[in-house]
Amino acid sequence: MTLTVWTYDWVPEGPRGYVRDLRLRWALEEAELAYEVRSTPFENRGPDHLRRQPFGQAPFLSDGDITMFESGACLLHIAARSERLMPSDPAGAAETLQWVIAALNSIEMVTVPWWFLSLSGDTENGLAGWARQRLAHVEAVLQERDWLAASRFTVADLLMADVLRVPKLRSFAASPTLEAYVERVCDRPAFRKAHADQIAHFEAADRARRKT
Amino acid sequence: MTLTVWTYDWVPEGPRGYVRDLRLRWALEEAELAYEVRSTPFENRGPDHLRRQPFGQAPFLSDGDITMFESGACLLHIAARSERLMPSDPAGAAETLQWVIAALNSIEMVTVPWWFLSLSGDTENGLAGWARQRLAHVEAVLQERDWLAASRFTVADLLMADVLRVPKLRSFAASPTLEAYVERVCDRPAFRKAHADQIAHFEAADRARRKT
Repeated sequence: MTLTVWTYDWVPEGPRGYVRDLRLRWALEEAELAYEVRSTPFENRGPDHLRRQPFGQAPFLSDGDITMFESGACLLHIAARSERLMPSDPAGAAETLQWVIAALNSIEMVTVPWWFLSLSGDTENGLAGWARQRLAHVEAVLQERDWLAASRFTVADLLMADVLRVPKLRSFAASPTLEAYVERVCDRPAFRKAHADQIAHFEAADRARRKT
Repeated sequence: MTLTVWTYDWVPEGPRGYVRDLRLRWALEEAELAYEVRSTPFENRGPDHLRRQPFGQAPFLSDGDITMFESGACLLHIAARSERLMPSDPAGAAETLQWVIAALNSIEMVTVPWWFLSLSGDTENGLAGWARQRLAHVEAVLQERDWLAASRFTVADLLMADVLRVPKLRSFAASPTLEAYVERVCDRPAFRKAHADQIAHFEAADRARRKT
């Protein structure tokens, strides 16, 4: 069964290094699973795109006959194949799962809309107090330990670090604890390879565009 | 192994019928799994609460020695035990998982902060356009089919309907398709029992308070 990560054929400079196919590449590198990367048009996302990703976004994953969207769901699907990403013992699996969902639904649910509102320049927008509170709760946890679950790196750290590494959010949080956590998790060779591969993918798209 | 849903010992009138222990009660009723409900103080949530739920919220779940938080994670943990909530075939499981995550990270990630900002009275706040767009995508999917995944009720419908049934959001969406979906999913006996049980739990707390 071939694992295929689908991402855009091109994106502007801004989101490069942050498009969420990076989460999938990173997880697959950690798990040492073979995969390929294929492209779907960034512009003119039509019915064919919406059939595979009903919100008109990327990435999505194919695994043999299965195609799935939502980076969080794809991560859990990949993690089920690899002890490196998710412990197989029930307690470790439950702890990892809860922190994956916390990254998506307790942190990103506040920090992404905060970021969206701050695009206007106002980082002290109507979600700032709530975002600060949520970040403080994660900070308190990470003051006590290096990894979120199972006393070692898991897919929960992969996702939480990806959520927290957004530059504007890092300045806003101004937390040495969160900063050290992001640095520690993103210093992994699998992150560095996934990041470099994504940048190279979009740079190749620039070169192809210039030729046409 | 006893499954225990932990929720607050009391909440004000406003959130009654919406506290997220309802999601867990509902799933356990659908799965016909035995469970008990226990209380944790709503007021004065101290270190003991934060040790079990680092964001200071409810619910959390205990399953024998395992304690986990995040209603989305608890739902996936419960669903893994019941074909009624999550198909066991890989394609059906992947489809259900992606829609569980979509409810948490594509819909709630926009609608909950929209709701939070609208507490000031401004439903046309800075997140309104984005919320409308996300709801339109789900609406388009539900115009084509009755259930999100696997051509039948799953835990993805349980969660998505719980996300969409918030009164203020229903008025804002003003969508006959989403309205019919919420009605259809919430007409299930398991929802009605879970809802009635939560209301009764908090009403019993009122009576206990009046006695002291």
